Amino acid sequence: MMRFGIIGTGRIGDMHARLIALQPDAVVTWCFDVFEDSARRTAEAVGARATTDVDALLAADDVDAVLIASPTDTHVEMILRSAEAGKSILCEKPIDVDIEMVEKCREKLLTFDVPLQLGFNRRFDPSHAGVRNAVANGEVGALELLVITSRDPGPPPPRAILEACGGLFRDTTIHDMDMARFVLGEDPVEVFTMAANRVDPVFAELGDVDTAMIVMRADSGALCHINNSRRTNYGYDQRVEAFGAEGMVRSNNHRPSEVSRYGAGGTAKRDELLHFFIERYRAAYEAEIRDFIDQVTAGKPPSVTFEDGRRALILSEAALKSYQTNQPVKVDYS
Amino acid sequence: MMRFGIIGTGRIGDMHARLIALQPDAVVTWCFDVFEDSARRTAEAVGARATTDVDALLAADDVDAVLIASPTDTHVEMILRSAEAGKSILCEKPIDVDIEMVEKCREKLLTFDVPLQLGFNRRFDPSHAGVRNAVANGEVGALELLVITSRDPGPPPPRAILEACGGLFRDTTIHDMDMARFVLGEDPVEVFTMAANRVDPVFAELGDVDTAMIVMRADSGALCHINNSRRTNYGYDQRVEAFGAEGMVRSNNHRPSEVSRYGAGGTAKRDELLHFFIERYRAAYEAEIRDFIDQVTAGKPPSVTFEDGRRALILSEAALKSYQTNQPVKVDYS
Amino acid sequence: MMRFGIIGTGRIGDMHARLIALQPDAVVTWCFDVFEDSARRTAEAVGARATTDVDALLAADDVDAVLIASPTDTHVEMILRSAEAGKSILCEKPIDVDIEMVEKCREKLLTFDVPLQLGFNRRFDPSHAGVRNAVANGEVGALELLVITSRDPGPPPPRAILEACGGLFRDTTIHDMDMARFVLGEDPVEVFTMAANRVDPVFAELGDVDTAMIVMRADSGALCHINNSRRTNYGYDQRVEAFGAEGMVRSNNHRPSEVSRYGAGGTAKRDELLHFFIERYRAAYEAEIRDFIDQVTAGKPPSVTFEDGRRALILSEAALKSYQTNQPVKVDYS
Amino acid sequence: MMRFGIIGTGRIGDMHARLIALQPDAVVTWCFDVFEDSARRTAEAVGARATTDVDALLAADDVDAVLIASPTDTHVEMILRSAEAGKSILCEKPIDVDIEMVEKCREKLLTFDVPLQLGFNRRFDPSHAGVRNAVANGEVGALELLVITSRDPGPPPPRAILEACGGLFRDTTIHDMDMARFVLGEDPVEVFTMAANRVDPVFAELGDVDTAMIVMRADSGALCHINNSRRTNYGYDQRVEAFGAEGMVRSNNHRPSEVSRYGAGGTAKRDELLHFFIERYRAAYEAEIRDFIDQVTAGKPPSVTFEDGRRALILSEAALKSYQTNQPVKVDYS
Repeated sequence: MMRFGIIGTGRIGDMHARLIALQPDAVVTWCFDVFEDSARRTAEAVGARATTDVDALLAADDVDAVLIASPTDTHVEMILRSAEAGKSILCEKPIDVDIEMVEKCREKLLTFDVPLQLGFNRRFDPSHAGVRNAVANGEVGALELLVITSRDPGPPPPRAILEACGGLFRDTTIHDMDMARFVLGEDPVEVFTMAANRVDPVFAELGDVDTAMIVMRADSGALCHINNSRRTNYGYDQRVEAFGAEGMVRSNNHRPSEVSRYGAGGTAKRDELLHFFIERYRAAYEAEIRDFIDQVTAGKPPSVTFEDGRRALILSEAALKSYQTNQPVKVDYS
Repeated sequence: MMRFGIIGTGRIGDMHARLIALQPDAVVTWCFDVFEDSARRTAEAVGARATTDVDALLAADDVDAVLIASPTDTHVEMILRSAEAGKSILCEKPIDVDIEMVEKCREKLLTFDVPLQLGFNRRFDPSHAGVRNAVANGEVGALELLVITSRDPGPPPPRAILEACGGLFRDTTIHDMDMARFVLGEDPVEVFTMAANRVDPVFAELGDVDTAMIVMRADSGALCHINNSRRTNYGYDQRVEAFGAEGMVRSNNHRPSEVSRYGAGGTAKRDELLHFFIERYRAAYEAEIRDFIDQVTAGKPPSVTFEDGRRALILSEAALKSYQTNQPVKVDYS
Repeated sequence: MMRFGIIGTGRIGDMHARLIALQPDAVVTWCFDVFEDSARRTAEAVGARATTDVDALLAADDVDAVLIASPTDTHVEMILRSAEAGKSILCEKPIDVDIEMVEKCREKLLTFDVPLQLGFNRRFDPSHAGVRNAVANGEVGALELLVITSRDPGPPPPRAILEACGGLFRDTTIHDMDMARFVLGEDPVEVFTMAANRVDPVFAELGDVDTAMIVMRADSGALCHINNSRRTNYGYDQRVEAFGAEGMVRSNNHRPSEVSRYGAGGTAKRDELLHFFIERYRAAYEAEIRDFIDQVTAGKPPSVTFEDGRRALILSEAALKSYQTNQPVKVDYS
Repeated sequence: MMRFGIIGTGRIGDMHARLIALQPDAVVTWCFDVFEDSARRTAEAVGARATTDVDALLAADDVDAVLIASPTDTHVEMILRSAEAGKSILCEKPIDVDIEMVEKCREKLLTFDVPLQLGFNRRFDPSHAGVRNAVANGEVGALELLVITSRDPGPPPPRAILEACGGLFRDTTIHDMDMARFVLGEDPVEVFTMAANRVDPVFAELGDVDTAMIVMRADSGALCHINNSRRTNYGYDQRVEAFGAEGMVRSNNHRPSEVSRYGAGGTAKRDELLHFFIERYRAAYEAEIRDFIDQVTAGKPPSVTFEDGRRALILSEAALKSYQTNQPVKVDYS
């Protein structure tokens, strides 16, 4: 039985807590949040103790692992304190939006020996994972073209969230960068970005962009395209397409039902895509928790590592730099 | 080079004439219609001679084969006269809506030895034929369930046409009866029908129905369902689904393009289905002509025989009788 | 907070217990099964007390509602004892496979005033419910044709289960009969059945059939077709198609992912359909529990009533009688 | 009645000749080819005169228009001679693979006043045209992202053809460049290309590439991605996807039938895509001819102009230059 402390019980932390409680071999024992009401609400739902003092949680004997879902700018601190306390760690992405902070964290982590998994939940989505597994199994032959479509449902998040998120590339594209690495099975070595402001004036006001197209190259010669938008009017548009000599495998979108409509004006009309990421990726979040428990319990390394988080951020930085300089950028992972 | 005379240059005859003219090894030499303008219009389009005298066409040396597309109640006469004249015959369905007429025609035809193909065009549709071939090749194992959806685009045909057509079962369902025999690879032996008047008062006024559901059984134990409507608002709905121990094969609908639309309110919306049977079954009509020329030229029997037409009509009669008596009807093909 | 006692902790009872435990306003307090291990396993998973004495559960003060998932032939007894104990009741389908037992139960229930919901889970499936809601909202106009495809994944259940299940019509078709009533919004008044033995010799040995096609008529003139098989090799095939003057709405099948494959030999290949009913209808089972809690808590009548269960069974009996007599059967609900 | 001379009766010229012959208001009168057999074969099929002397064709009184389908390196000469002869011109793409030749041709054409349409057939495809019309009608709002997938069925063309074709960008991508301009409704102003050799050694031997990803930007801020491969194993993969604030419209692939297959191992499997461009774009080629006849007959300018051909080539050159320099390239159309 793995006993979890939840660090941060906002929307994502609360969801994780409930998914952990569903597992037969895991239990939530502590819930921390700076907002007492929030911590208590989640704690009650899962039969845990609530606290506004993270030290209490980290010092507790009945906490084997922590789920870090506090604000992004506290991730590094919480990772290091949890490592120091000897807890296994499942931390929401990103490690930090500042690559310097990530490098410092990396160095300090070398002195601890705790399992740490980074929350790239999309790797656990049955559809995206299906594409990756097909590629890894050689179903399409050597991968030649990888196309990732990744568009958030609108409207855009509140300004306060946008200000702290690190911009389109570090906040959203980072997921696609991880997906690219996951499916390619290798690291992109060069990146070129075009981007624009088409969605909402708030992005330009923050010096950010809301619409982007990226191309990348891997050493094998495989090419990868990512396109991003901060807003669709038809739901959360998340597709992955892998192509090679032996064929193509695609991961298509998810909808709330399998209803289709026929009438004057059109046929086979389906529902809008699922809008909310917690609904869209519910199965992925469940599988992610499951995998973390299984790997740690078996003494195996986590499936998604700190280094995965660092490399995805390096790629996001490269995409941003390419946009800013209008030049292709060689990626340096050292 | 097969030289055709067209008997009847209405909508269907004109289409056939143009499709024949497209074939590299066939030519239209004569066009007959009781309406001189009609005959002349088609004749000009295909470089043939127009006539209002069918005897002239039948007597012509440069006519090897006839395409009979005159009104249904003249089919038997035209078949017999063409047979007497020694022409190969491709005749639109049905032979006649009166089974007595069909039986008399059958008897008289015994004295002639000319190839005669009946125009069950749907057998040549790439999608429906694909289902039949899959079943014939054993792809689904022994056939267990066959579901035929067959709904005409609305609005219903003009009253004059409805009066002469022999009613829903002899006019429309007969196509589905032929499809059932084609895919089953055997004759249904028992039929039960439920029907209703839901579409337009004109059908009830004519003592006809416009909506029907049929179930049939074959000797092998295979079961078949047909559902019919005289009107959809989304196009010509024509599907065939064959099921057995080894799987299922389906023939789905055809649309004018492969465009799909995503937006607020729905996603993946496709065009309405093709509405007009000549557009929907254009490829089938072409393949039908092609097949007729190939079979006759090679001295092989036509792919769709007079007996096929007779049996489909017998099944349609059985469906009607079942509806009228509210009893299952054993089918007698003798 | 609604406190549940689980009566029967086999596969379905265990699933219900876990789904109840997920609800924020419900809790499982007692688990009964004649097999102590089974009761204890479920009880531990949801933090409840285990018992092999159903009287203890029914007498407990901390049980507001019971979930009856014991063997079918105990349903009537458990319903009546639970009613006597004043518990709200959510009972798995069917009430009983013997219509006499159902009638007796009905009569006795008149003397109690407890909410009772019957477990026709498919009514709560997002896709099927989507079709029903579209029809109820008039999206297709007056309903004219309803086609229900309902085929179980193979292989067939063990012989012992088949012996007790009441046969194809009372065990499987009953779901489709309820779906027909649900979507039609009225009761079928006449039924005709064709059936066959195609799947496995065990069915014939038990005097049962494994393959069936049914047509039914409602007073409005709406027609309904159901086709059933006890075995597919591609998963659980469950579709509903509603057609009328204003269009068509369909509920299509569910798969484990949205992956599609393209290669030599074919394109757009999807996963097999979900095979196991608990996976296929997981969302439906969750919504069913949710609805039961909401309705009972609000003092409203359950969404699916004892009478719904009785009428679906009467329809299943009519389908069986039609098969046995090879005659259409008028349905008597009195 | 428009009278056509066919210049070049290879595969494409022969197809055009037959499609012209199908039109009620057009006729083929002359067929030229340097190979007499080829000219004669096409001429016989459409009832025209065959010649190996293009001067005879151009001097003929009974030629109103020419269809130029001779080898690419003769296009400019044939265009200019036809213009001099006062013929209306429908010329296969490209004008030439050498931009200098195109510029010279452009200058000389200024002295003639004949209609000239360039054969960008894909503009007339019902599916791609459907996307363009939807965008032009504002269905997706201001266009933000345009994704063009364009992969040829394998194996690659013979070496001799590859040597003369001008390379991937001038031969294949040029179609996509025209599609981009067509759907965007404006000219891309900057291009960046990544490319690779993944398909066949022959491409590298010729100094060519076989796999490419391009991103482009238009003045409006709209972004466009093109991905190309010289080989698929599942047919001709040609898709267009247009995205904006109001939604998305997609043009999907075409198949020979609407058959789908379900069985152990997978469901909903469709046919391979159509492989051969003449089959895939048959409807487009028909509509192209139809449009040319209609525009010229009505005295209106052709729908696809010399300038369209020139600009698509300029874009292809820019894509090539970007690949060669690994730099984004600003496009100069002057």
